[in-house]
Amino acid sequence: MKTVGIGLLGFGTVGAGVVMGLQKNKALLENRTGLKLELRSIADIDLDRDRGVSIPPGVLTRDAEAVVARADIDIVVELIGGLKAARDLIIQALKLGKPVVTANKALLAEHGAELFQLAEANRTDIFFEASVGGGIPLIRSLREGLVSNHISSIYGILNGTCNYILTRMEQNRMTFASALKEAQKAGYAEADPALDVDGIDTAHKAVILASLAYGFNVSMQEVGVEGIRGLDALDLRYALELGYRIKMLAVIEQENGDVAVRVCPTLVPMQHILASVSGVFNAVLIEGDEVGDVLCYGKGAGRDSTASAILSDVVDAGRNLVFHAARRAPGFVGYNPLGKVKAVGETDVRYYLRLTLPDRPGVFGQIATILGRHGISLASVLQKENMAGRQVPIIIITHHGKEKAFRAALDELDALPVVGAKTVRFRIEDF
Amino acid sequence: MKTVGIGLLGFGTVGAGVVMGLQKNKALLENRTGLKLELRSIADIDLDRDRGVSIPPGVLTRDAEAVVARADIDIVVELIGGLKAARDLIIQALKLGKPVVTANKALLAEHGAELFQLAEANRTDIFFEASVGGGIPLIRSLREGLVSNHISSIYGILNGTCNYILTRMEQNRMTFASALKEAQKAGYAEADPALDVDGIDTAHKAVILASLAYGFNVSMQEVGVEGIRGLDALDLRYALELGYRIKMLAVIEQENGDVAVRVCPTLVPMQHILASVSGVFNAVLIEGDEVGDVLCYGKGAGRDSTASAILSDVVDAGRNLVFHAARRAPGFVGYNPLGKVKAVGETDVRYYLRLTLPDRPGVFGQIATILGRHGISLASVLQKENMAGRQVPIIIITHHGKEKAFRAALDELDALPVVGAKTVRFRIEDF
Repeated sequence: MKTVGIGLLGFGTVGAGVVMGLQKNKALLENRTGLKLELRSIADIDLDRDRGVSIPPGVLTRDAEAVVARADIDIVVELIGGLKAARDLIIQALKLGKPVVTANKALLAEHGAELFQLAEANRTDIFFEASVGGGIPLIRSLREGLVSNHISSIYGILNGTCNYILTRMEQNRMTFASALKEAQKAGYAEADPALDVDGIDTAHKAVILASLAYGFNVSMQEVGVEGIRGLDALDLRYALELGYRIKMLAVIEQENGDVAVRVCPTLVPMQHILASVSGVFNAVLIEGDEVGDVLCYGKGAGRDSTASAILSDVVDAGRNLVFHAARRAPGFVGYNPLGKVKAVGETDVRYYLRLTLPDRPGVFGQIATILGRHGISLASVLQKENMAGRQVPIIIITHHGKEKAFRAALDELDALPVVGAKTVRFRIEDF
Repeated sequence: MKTVGIGLLGFGTVGAGVVMGLQKNKALLENRTGLKLELRSIADIDLDRDRGVSIPPGVLTRDAEAVVARADIDIVVELIGGLKAARDLIIQALKLGKPVVTANKALLAEHGAELFQLAEANRTDIFFEASVGGGIPLIRSLREGLVSNHISSIYGILNGTCNYILTRMEQNRMTFASALKEAQKAGYAEADPALDVDGIDTAHKAVILASLAYGFNVSMQEVGVEGIRGLDALDLRYALELGYRIKMLAVIEQENGDVAVRVCPTLVPMQHILASVSGVFNAVLIEGDEVGDVLCYGKGAGRDSTASAILSDVVDAGRNLVFHAARRAPGFVGYNPLGKVKAVGETDVRYYLRLTLPDRPGVFGQIATILGRHGISLASVLQKENMAGRQVPIIIITHHGKEKAFRAALDELDALPVVGAKTVRFRIEDF
């Protein structure tokens, strides 16, 4: 049996999960792989906290750089998170020709181009199965299982926090604020939920998937991102009446060569399989020209689920070391330098619009005229009954049009004196 | 770019799909992998039929053995199907140290032990992603993505023909015979549907998954198999009323060390994700101790979907060749020689029973007494209204018990003079 030395950077929740997994399933891992995975050093700033796992003396240190540099550390597992320190340490490891395993989606989305280039230059690898979809073997499936497929689209529910909040809002008629509070209590949302609810985390993951699927570096700046903060439970109810669920969706579609990438709360038809993904679960639907639709579903976060993905990467890295096969299946291959992200305004979309209008003859005509002038045609209109006040909500489901036409039309609508509040808008995905 | 020579054995539907995929996505495959996959020879008994794909002259031959033996054939793709010829040719290839890619589930289920041993002895590999779940990257996910997980269970809808028939029977209130006829017309069922509807195909796949998950050779003889032939649409309706769908399910569960493996039409709770897998789609739900539940879903058959899996294996084999990394991640590792399949009678199950009884006082008491004597307790009872005749259907949902207790109780019940017809029985899976 060959022994591989592992250095772990970051001994937080996921780090502790990796240590537990290595200890608990040690025999299984050795039996299946013929590798002895030896955790030789763990770096963290906190040497004292009890992580519920026992570590031999001398393994824990504050000096992460020293861990990376140690001659008997063959694989570096980066679980520090954040950009600066993680990036520096990964660069250090790659320059030493050591493979890196990371779950750091933010780092890959922001600095992936640089890091993947450095890995290539130093003939080593970056593994990142845990960066998207937690323990779901998604990156591996996309990169290896579907290697012969032109990918036409990827639709993903990639953030458990958002999905939990939306599920609770819909099922229990809760407000966004109270669903968020509940998610925080249950440990599904951070004290500062911005990364999750504002869509940044989903966008990081969308950038990774899109880059991988299309062979060029997609940048965060090119992704249209809208969060779920302040979403009104009313719209979840109206959507339901119309046969849709609102899901926080990453949409990656190839349209006439260019790739549309957006992250936003989206109406998903009730009968579609993605509509039935609830709570903290994640799911990704990939369409390939050979395979058709493939869906992967599972826990997108959590200590053990993420550790499962990390360990699968550690095994992959270990196998490459033992077989001197670094770069056998590189994490990212930039084979498509002419690849382009479609400008958000040019994407082809359709909308759910909720307007607030006075219940007076002629008003709706004004609205329809403006939409028509921008080339937007209506698929259906739902006027909710006027309960008390003089303003009524009107729901419009449109046909497809260019995003920029919608923006122009809505700017014009919202400037009308009769329009009582900013028009609420969600894209609809028909798949 | 390294060139790898491929020999294809069997130029049927899937074979033609592989050729098409290689031609259509040639540039993509080369860009992503750095491999030039050169199809150098194709063996088939039929040299004349038009497969809708153009082949350079000299590539097609009747001599499969010569293809395997050719020095410039590095990878052998076996798509002949059947046992005898396929086995002989795969043995020939493995003895030459050539990696084999196959979709032949029957062969692996019947002769896997011998073939995997031969691959190991000759330091080469057998790849079989296409053998289960068509294009879904399932084998790869189980073997590599979930490598650190003790697998507690695998539940699979693995046969598109059965799932199509059951879906049509339920949704359109069709009989088994007419749904089968429709499936045959649509090309989803063979003229002789036995392999599919009698559960053999699903059992082949269950054997492969169970062997892989638990590290020992499961044999076909150890699998309890029941088909869907002659299933009464009535039971689909009653199941629906009780909140279940009937699905042809492969069940693989570790129970106290031993592994239960069975294939049978099974009641699945409506709200469970597997209940929503309809038509020709396949889905597999895997539970691991680290990852929790992971579901993979997609087209389980079809020319291009299967070709997608075959090509992913060809790339894997090609990468191993280029990096001299044969057996880097062996297809099957028999690390668990003490592994055992649980005797069917010893498995822990619960049942949906439909009895046909005269609508007379005291009859149900007799039934309940017999079940009770065998230690079987009732979860619920549903007596359908007596329409015309004197016999009424009684549906009993039981609690859990040993399979052998159910068998003994049902033998006794069916021998009662008051029981008008053999009791209809389906297992219920609660997951």
